[in-house]
Amino acid sequence: MATTPSVPLLKDELDIVIPTIRNLDFLEMWRPFFQGYHLIIVQDGDPSKTINVPEGFDYELYNRNDINRILGPKASCISFKDSACRCFGYMVSKKKYVYTIDDDCFVAKDPSGKDINALEQRIKNLLTPSTPHFFNTLYDPYREGADFVRGYPFSLREGAPTAVSHGLWLNIPDYDAPTQLVKPRERNTRYVDAVMTIPKGTLFPMCGMNLAFDRQLIGPAMYFGLMGDGQPIGRYDDMWAGWCIKVICDHLGLGVKTGLPYIWHSKASNPFVNLKKEYKGIFWQEEIIPFFQSATLPKDCTSVQKCYIELSKQVKEKLGPVDPYFNKLGDAMVTWIEAWDELNNSSEEVSSKPNGAAAK
Amino acid sequence: MATTPSVPLLKDELDIVIPTIRNLDFLEMWRPFFQGYHLIIVQDGDPSKTINVPEGFDYELYNRNDINRILGPKASCISFKDSACRCFGYMVSKKKYVYTIDDDCFVAKDPSGKDINALEQRIKNLLTPSTPHFFNTLYDPYREGADFVRGYPFSLREGAPTAVSHGLWLNIPDYDAPTQLVKPRERNTRYVDAVMTIPKGTLFPMCGMNLAFDRQLIGPAMYFGLMGDGQPIGRYDDMWAGWCIKVICDHLGLGVKTGLPYIWHSKASNPFVNLKKEYKGIFWQEEIIPFFQSATLPKDCTSVQKCYIELSKQVKEKLGPVDPYFNKLGDAMVTWIEAWDELNNSSEEVSSKPNGAAAK
Repeated sequence: MATTPSVPLLKDELDIVIPTIRNLDFLEMWRPFFQGYHLIIVQDGDPSKTINVPEGFDYELYNRNDINRILGPKASCISFKDSACRCFGYMVSKKKYVYTIDDDCFVAKDPSGKDINALEQRIKNLLTPSTPHFFNTLYDPYREGADFVRGYPFSLREGAPTAVSHGLWLNIPDYDAPTQLVKPRERNTRYVDAVMTIPKGTLFPMCGMNLAFDRQLIGPAMYFGLMGDGQPIGRYDDMWAGWCIKVICDHLGLGVKTGLPYIWHSKASNPFVNLKKEYKGIFWQEEIIPFFQSATLPKDCTSVQKCYIELSKQVKEKLGPVDPYFNKLGDAMVTWIEAWDELNNSSEEVSSKPNGAAAK
Repeated sequence: MATTPSVPLLKDELDIVIPTIRNLDFLEMWRPFFQGYHLIIVQDGDPSKTINVPEGFDYELYNRNDINRILGPKASCISFKDSACRCFGYMVSKKKYVYTIDDDCFVAKDPSGKDINALEQRIKNLLTPSTPHFFNTLYDPYREGADFVRGYPFSLREGAPTAVSHGLWLNIPDYDAPTQLVKPRERNTRYVDAVMTIPKGTLFPMCGMNLAFDRQLIGPAMYFGLMGDGQPIGRYDDMWAGWCIKVICDHLGLGVKTGLPYIWHSKASNPFVNLKKEYKGIFWQEEIIPFFQSATLPKDCTSVQKCYIELSKQVKEKLGPVDPYFNKLGDAMVTWIEAWDELNNSSEEVSSKPNGAAAK
């Protein structure tokens, strides 16, 4: 077993957000690493079902009834029957940092056989700067044993604040349905010992399975969109958030990292079900990505909220013609910001407490 | 020892270019991997000195007298007393691919202890496409066991032709003089098992120690500038080439990869000597890099040569005011293209043969 720091890093400044429809037995494996932290569990699907949480974890749990009660009509922006519902947890968190993980993700081992403390690595990633303006060929220059290489401009060596740390997965790779169908037996066994910054101006496919971010820097843009029940697509929730946060981070001079840490992704989802959820997205992304690649935000967008509202307008204007869904999504983006501000700027925080919260 | 393919890959389509001032004993270690290939040795410094090449290698060797004789007045564009002279080898090669390596670089071992066939990995890198338009979080999607992840647009999965493969170094990292001075004992021990594309629009510090490229796609832009004897700077030869090729590759839709393969870099150069060579570059790069970051080429620049001539004009116009050196460099860029075309478009290739060439 890996050594755990005696006092968990950022214990009082980080929440772990877990969307789920089942008992959280997977937490047993994470106990050495997660037990010191507060968990926000977002229960998807039938709210009458009881989710068992292993003993000894500090958590609050929200089901659909809680979400409806807390947000009222604005609850329409939170997806149902899709793991996109996790972003409700980002909204009700009161911490500076959020780590979100799927309940089919387990502790991975590094090549020496040691358990990877994914949380500790994320925190390192978030607390050290990013380098979005110039590529460093030895990867993360702030890591022990590495630095900026010859030819790296000295004026850029302070880096940029890190807003997002995107982590990877051993075992089941995060493939789309067509790739799953074509390569049903492919497993990711390659441990790439690197953290790197996604350069400014470059988009990437952000996966929500193993993701951390600085809520204060980028939280209001980390909206997972309208997916699942009643919506024409699924499995594009994290992608949507990834495109939006990248455009906004680039605009605000913030960094996005990818690479370490790995988690062990245990379960391949059903490719036939996935294909049904994804197929419109597979078409649409061919128009969505050029849209985000060319999106620019005006200079007076100086806060994440302002950027996000501006982006919602551009979504309706430029993607609305692709499908009416994007008009609905653009409206939901605005609702999301309104709800975020209501819960986060209010001096009275009582309204965001769930039923049966603070169960231990 | 690693297994070597019985017939070396691209044996008749690749030259290995080595700049040197000493006997090439380092080739002994590379014998299993290089022996099937043709070497182009560019002898720097005193042309009367004899460079010993181990038995059994197929090579041609050019010293300064050869360069002067072959290029005449245009020899002024080839640096003297600086490893930048290596680019003469790119010019006289008649092959599609070039691999260049420094004579203090040895065979590295992978984490399993196996010798790394750096040439075989480069060839794989050059023969598979790049992905400059969107970031793939599992790195090179064309590698065995990997693919494009969920959310990667299908229209971009054919990739772009790969023009350049930049390789890395274990042991002595490629640091500038200030970093060498501050961290004299730092060694690179981290083997990062990845190849990735540098995204479009992102510059990187290209090191010439362990580099391969497709001459047909990008050769005329692989000019290592004016360095060394009579010039105000050194150690920016490969950086200069890297900035130029990246802007041109981005314009022409070509890809640049970095990562594997590693070589073992044995010798740290003297940081005091390096500081003297570098110090103007350290200032200048603060203006050079924004210049290249914002450089755009007109649509009618459809060949590497046209792009390079256009870039030379912009260098004189925008960097000339920084220092008169850049006017001289801009002129040398034009001379380089003229010399390249003379040697490469001529039906009569006799003029490029060195004295005593084809020694075996």
